[in-house]
Amino acid sequence: MTSALSEAERRHWLRLARTENVGPVTFDQLIRRFGTAGQALAALPDLARRGGRAIKLATDAAIDKELADGAALGARLIASCEAAFPHALAALDPPPPVIWARGRAELLDRPSVAIVGARVASAAGQRFARGLASELGQAGHVIVSGLARGIDAAAHEGALPSGTVAVLGGGVDDIYPPEHAKLYARIAEDGCVVSESEPGRTAVARDFPRRNRIISGLSQAVVVVEAELRSGSLITARLAAEQGREVLAVPGSPLDPRAKGTNDLIRQGAAICEGAEDVLRALEGLRGLHEPDRSYGAGPTADPDDALREAVAALLSPTPVSRDEIVRATSAPAPLVFAALVELALAGRAELLPGGMVATA
Amino acid sequence: MTSALSEAERRHWLRLARTENVGPVTFDQLIRRFGTAGQALAALPDLARRGGRAIKLATDAAIDKELADGAALGARLIASCEAAFPHALAALDPPPPVIWARGRAELLDRPSVAIVGARVASAAGQRFARGLASELGQAGHVIVSGLARGIDAAAHEGALPSGTVAVLGGGVDDIYPPEHAKLYARIAEDGCVVSESEPGRTAVARDFPRRNRIISGLSQAVVVVEAELRSGSLITARLAAEQGREVLAVPGSPLDPRAKGTNDLIRQGAAICEGAEDVLRALEGLRGLHEPDRSYGAGPTADPDDALREAVAALLSPTPVSRDEIVRATSAPAPLVFAALVELALAGRAELLPGGMVATA
Repeated sequence: MTSALSEAERRHWLRLARTENVGPVTFDQLIRRFGTAGQALAALPDLARRGGRAIKLATDAAIDKELADGAALGARLIASCEAAFPHALAALDPPPPVIWARGRAELLDRPSVAIVGARVASAAGQRFARGLASELGQAGHVIVSGLARGIDAAAHEGALPSGTVAVLGGGVDDIYPPEHAKLYARIAEDGCVVSESEPGRTAVARDFPRRNRIISGLSQAVVVVEAELRSGSLITARLAAEQGREVLAVPGSPLDPRAKGTNDLIRQGAAICEGAEDVLRALEGLRGLHEPDRSYGAGPTADPDDALREAVAALLSPTPVSRDEIVRATSAPAPLVFAALVELALAGRAELLPGGMVATA
Repeated sequence: MTSALSEAERRHWLRLARTENVGPVTFDQLIRRFGTAGQALAALPDLARRGGRAIKLATDAAIDKELADGAALGARLIASCEAAFPHALAALDPPPPVIWARGRAELLDRPSVAIVGARVASAAGQRFARGLASELGQAGHVIVSGLARGIDAAAHEGALPSGTVAVLGGGVDDIYPPEHAKLYARIAEDGCVVSESEPGRTAVARDFPRRNRIISGLSQAVVVVEAELRSGSLITARLAAEQGREVLAVPGSPLDPRAKGTNDLIRQGAAICEGAEDVLRALEGLRGLHEPDRSYGAGPTADPDDALREAVAALLSPTPVSRDEIVRATSAPAPLVFAALVELALAGRAELLPGGMVATA
């Protein structure tokens, strides 16, 4: 953790984050091994070649454009190693390497609760979400959500006077759905809009899991208000549980399909949420979030040989397994196996997933 | 447990059950001590006098009338010591000393599920209860409820083709509410109507806890569909939990006051019920019910002296305490303290409660 990166370091950090095949896990591994983004970038071509395929680094022009676009929006780029990076997000393992924040970035370090739910929500559900957001806001909590239709929008609306954060899958200027333009403008002014993506990017389906991970990551608790089975809100709830956050769900009638997901969460152990008091009670019991020890720099320097790298590659499949399982299967030292996985990831032959899991890309 | 009482024994059993100040706990204690209802009846006047007040035994005329009334209705009196007494009820500690059954009494020994809930129920709640009763009925379960308006009636209706039991607070001929006369007639014909009270009795408020205890007592599981906070259905659920029965509750929106009670049950550990499958799953995990060892007869014969009896009386208050606590406080042998409590109960100076608790009457 550094107080703030220099201009040059910031460019390196962003360039490493934007390079193909570098996801948050690989990013984290590279920084651990090489100490700085600049040194990791210098090593990347060689690592990828060893992994089996040349890598195309993000271009200087692309980084110039992203920084200029962000500046034009009045948005702020925050690297995960900087003091200004939200503490709750920094506690993720690994955190997103960078975020863009438009509006009052100081809200990101206030106690926060996420309220998420169905896009096609009932009027009652929206009313409940609005009231809950308002009450939690009055109790001092920032309300985090995803600017989607239905429950998300109602939650933001209820928390506009007290403070709300919208996390987007596209860039911080990607207003979707279009009818939320006015809501977006008020959040960008009085609240904060956050994204892991570059400004100008339009969200596509695969951006939403990362978006959801930031929604839960910024929050001490996630409340799901109305959700069908197999809906995105349940993914956010699962991520929240994995991140050690409190998960609450609003119960509903079995005759209402929008209650299937929330009732199912309650079956699985989520706390029942009938109002703000339930959330405040759940937060009382919450232990503080601890940032994992990242000990940047001073990582292992040994390189895996070709035989080990190919042995590791042969062990991968589309079904994620833990890195520890790969280590056991190869009987090689863990740092060497991890280094081989990073090389394979950079070459597009492996995908490093949060939680220490790995699969073929 | 005897296969069936003789005519004379049955009269004694009923007369003891109908004598003032003889509740189920006192009844059970007296049978344990004296072996038969006849011997207990013979001892009663003396015991009550020792307790401090004369006792009025139920009159022969009253017993004649009750037996004649029941016979006129085609109803059957079953004593808790008889083989025909429902096994699930016999497992209660203590069981009701007698029940009247009108209709197909054989249903009382089939696997049963109680469905209870709000009298002022929503149309959706009634539809849910009816469907649940029908599905559980098709799965081989008798549906037990209380013939009340709303959820109770819907549950009975759904289970009419497969088998349903209505437990009444008044006598087995006490049709309440009056608009359920037709439903009552069908249950008395195809199902079974049960009551602990004498035929002809109109239910009053204090009959309902006993009625609720039989509803849960007859059932392996109790499902609560819609209930406000502090409602009778929640009392049935609590009794069910105390009796070792499964308790399930149907969740609902926090905006619906009829879901407050069921959501609260779920908070307290009740299983979520979204349909028949949930009930069947809960029953799979259920251990069999075991009748407590009553070892009728061969009870202690020693009599407590006046000093002990008054010491015990002085320890009682309107707040129930366990009999064991009284034993500890007196340092006297437990059988003597229990005998003193029975004497005080018969004299109307103590109330023996299920679960081994005792208070001033």
